Amino acid sequence: MANRPILVVAGIGTGAGTGASTARIFSKAGYRVALIARDASSLQTFATSLNESGGDAHAFPISSYTHSSIHDAFTAIKQHWSGANGKAEIRVAVWNTASGVFKPFLSVTEEEIKNSADINIVGAFAFSREVILTFKENGLDAKGKRGTLLFTGATASIRGNVLTSSFAAGKSGLRALSQSLAKEFGKENIHVAHAIIDGIILTGRTKAPRDSDWAENEDVRLNADSIAEAYLYLVNQDRSAWTWELDLRPAHEKW
Amino acid sequence: MANRPILVVAGIGTGAGTGASTARIFSKAGYRVALIARDASSLQTFATSLNESGGDAHAFPISSYTHSSIHDAFTAIKQHWSGANGKAEIRVAVWNTASGVFKPFLSVTEEEIKNSADINIVGAFAFSREVILTFKENGLDAKGKRGTLLFTGATASIRGNVLTSSFAAGKSGLRALSQSLAKEFGKENIHVAHAIIDGIILTGRTKAPRDSDWAENEDVRLNADSIAEAYLYLVNQDRSAWTWELDLRPAHEKW
Amino acid sequence: MANRPILVVAGIGTGAGTGASTARIFSKAGYRVALIARDASSLQTFATSLNESGGDAHAFPISSYTHSSIHDAFTAIKQHWSGANGKAEIRVAVWNTASGVFKPFLSVTEEEIKNSADINIVGAFAFSREVILTFKENGLDAKGKRGTLLFTGATASIRGNVLTSSFAAGKSGLRALSQSLAKEFGKENIHVAHAIIDGIILTGRTKAPRDSDWAENEDVRLNADSIAEAYLYLVNQDRSAWTWELDLRPAHEKW
Amino acid sequence: MANRPILVVAGIGTGAGTGASTARIFSKAGYRVALIARDASSLQTFATSLNESGGDAHAFPISSYTHSSIHDAFTAIKQHWSGANGKAEIRVAVWNTASGVFKPFLSVTEEEIKNSADINIVGAFAFSREVILTFKENGLDAKGKRGTLLFTGATASIRGNVLTSSFAAGKSGLRALSQSLAKEFGKENIHVAHAIIDGIILTGRTKAPRDSDWAENEDVRLNADSIAEAYLYLVNQDRSAWTWELDLRPAHEKW
Repeated sequence: MANRPILVVAGIGTGAGTGASTARIFSKAGYRVALIARDASSLQTFATSLNESGGDAHAFPISSYTHSSIHDAFTAIKQHWSGANGKAEIRVAVWNTASGVFKPFLSVTEEEIKNSADINIVGAFAFSREVILTFKENGLDAKGKRGTLLFTGATASIRGNVLTSSFAAGKSGLRALSQSLAKEFGKENIHVAHAIIDGIILTGRTKAPRDSDWAENEDVRLNADSIAEAYLYLVNQDRSAWTWELDLRPAHEKW
Repeated sequence: MANRPILVVAGIGTGAGTGASTARIFSKAGYRVALIARDASSLQTFATSLNESGGDAHAFPISSYTHSSIHDAFTAIKQHWSGANGKAEIRVAVWNTASGVFKPFLSVTEEEIKNSADINIVGAFAFSREVILTFKENGLDAKGKRGTLLFTGATASIRGNVLTSSFAAGKSGLRALSQSLAKEFGKENIHVAHAIIDGIILTGRTKAPRDSDWAENEDVRLNADSIAEAYLYLVNQDRSAWTWELDLRPAHEKW
Repeated sequence: MANRPILVVAGIGTGAGTGASTARIFSKAGYRVALIARDASSLQTFATSLNESGGDAHAFPISSYTHSSIHDAFTAIKQHWSGANGKAEIRVAVWNTASGVFKPFLSVTEEEIKNSADINIVGAFAFSREVILTFKENGLDAKGKRGTLLFTGATASIRGNVLTSSFAAGKSGLRALSQSLAKEFGKENIHVAHAIIDGIILTGRTKAPRDSDWAENEDVRLNADSIAEAYLYLVNQDRSAWTWELDLRPAHEKW
Repeated sequence: MANRPILVVAGIGTGAGTGASTARIFSKAGYRVALIARDASSLQTFATSLNESGGDAHAFPISSYTHSSIHDAFTAIKQHWSGANGKAEIRVAVWNTASGVFKPFLSVTEEEIKNSADINIVGAFAFSREVILTFKENGLDAKGKRGTLLFTGATASIRGNVLTSSFAAGKSGLRALSQSLAKEFGKENIHVAHAIIDGIILTGRTKAPRDSDWAENEDVRLNADSIAEAYLYLVNQDRSAWTWELDLRPAHEKW
């Protein structure tokens, strides 16, 4: 069996959003898929569904996004595919986890802002550390890369607004991290990119409170698969022309 | 013969840069190619080379980027393919023309700044006008679009610097135009995007003063074909997830 | 009579906006005031009113914002105060002229976009050229400056929007110019700053279509005098801490 | 004795930087000064020096920037001046505390990034909460404000760079918080502003490793007093023209 690179995705949610679509699309494109999230049971269900579709996916649940938990997850990932046929290197990593609440500033609790900082900043640092250390051991692939690290951002990554103090603080911090990494590790042929998702993604949760017209109208809501296609494009960019940042929004989005 | 959409590219230069690569790559992807530029003879040479490679390209030289010249060019483009087999609609337009000089502010002449404003602002308005009017007549394609209008930007599009007063003024104005258009016409399923090219593109002109190591090192200079691939990706984005802006730079670029 | 520096303001309008307030406030602060605009008669009326309030103002009408017209105006300004008691150096210059229309893109005429480029870009270059050449001849003042060049910007300076294609293209180009100048001439102790005015300024023209509540409610509209106070503050910044850009908006402005 | 408003400054350092200059300049301008920092002894020394110069300052040391510590500090501040002659309302608050390290990403420890998030994000939220709750109880002052909340930012607030992953993540998060607050509470006449300090401030610590030319050359380093003057200007802006953000850098700074 040929070499199949590994994709690591952190943040899968209920299996209907960006993380899950990324896993599915990269799986179809030939990647092995390592899934990291905190909800072990839905993670396992999703891994099973990928494998039933011919994928090679595995769930690596973690209890929290601390440095040691994430380090252990990466150790387990490498161990899991260590006996695989052909090379099984981690070549793509996606940080899709987010924490933040949309509410007036004075309603944001101490726990909520701590949680936003813990996941969006501290957790993302821990994840990036493992990814960069892993990528540095890879040789250059056909595109001239050691690996691609992708971050899912949002409008709040570039703008604070009335109800987004907590979310914007975390997401803006994450974006700054991604830019620092892009500048520091581009020189080592590690590609770091940041996607600003501007609009609402169609998932079971966003669909419920809206009418069916909204769900069926691709002009007004994001399709998670289209975001995943953008990620696949970024991964395939050759080293002469890398994107650090792009935005993605539905055709009719007001912005 | 099947339907083949038309790509219009304004700004071809010597046939070695972004405009020319875009023409070649879209030609290979099945597009008819309309070439607009001021240098009639090199434009004709380039059109011929595309046709010898199996393309269906035609040169539409203009004397200047005025509203009437550009209007006439679009009329000629539509006329040229009016009898084509299958549909021949303009579906993609690329504004790749730029004018600007890199020199200390006090050395910028009145003519140079006028020229920068005439091309980057007034010319781009005239081109965009023809493109939008044309796209509005198209139906939706399989991706949910009436057409895609792409602008080639630069670092100077987002930042003035010591030697770039003239270039940055023009390019920043162009970027603002592209954002206005993206917001106004997204609602009509017309996709407008802007690429920030950050770095030096390998062409005969940029290669000459540098050593051969530079030309051969894809880590340090942009390949125009890779920019064109980005344009093709943008054109193929479906309507649920459109990019207005992305940056493109070599892996080792300092920024 | 003591040394009194000269302020040059381009763009006075009807005497109720930013340019006029700047002239009044600097006049009270001891500056001689040179007024540049295209409407000779209202310019003369305004100069007279400043002089009746104890100022030393003079009108320098120009027919258009070309390099030669602006050059002639600066020559006339220097000539006018050449016999003044004490030093009469141009120390502050404000580019407050703007051209742009708020309308759908397809309604913007060729003349309108040309006009926007001619004033916001070409005119601003010509004005800046005269200012920089003049400032370079000044010695350092007590704040460590040779002079301060201020540009009046708008929200459209940083963002294109549905009805602002023409205005945003011009204003974004102007902002890029101001940043280039700030970087190039800061090293020569020439201070260049750009103010983003975000909101509607109370003038006769903006007051007419609105109810009197609006005019009297300082929470919702800009007072041109407050903008002028900001300009005076910028002029008085010492060389260890210069601002290139600040925004100014009413307390209740939604942004 | 007349009404004297209270300034609260968090982050004083060794008494030579922005926080200390702000305390001194506002003290001279008639403000009572409440000092918050973690180093009780240098805080007390600095309070004493302000009082010896005729100020009315008091130290409120805290053990950490948690919600409860900051809440207790504000309770103590109000209690301290509760019997003061005339009104003693908190009208200005400055968040000048920062945590971040300048080092390669892989050298940033888990504790360092946690500390950056804890202070720049969580601590700033806690401080802002107390300030906003306090300001909401104030009536409008002569400038139409209930109070002004200022944040000290840095170049890292708007740009991640090779050695600034930790600092930029914290500072970018802080900036997003400040923008969210400015938008949410401007409507309640609470003014929130953010200053981007771009360059090195002259203090004992920055002076030591540099030659005396640098220290004496105001063209190349920031004077903390000049930053404090900017803060005083922001506090005095009337409600028709508020600044959310300005940058401050030495005349000769390369940027």
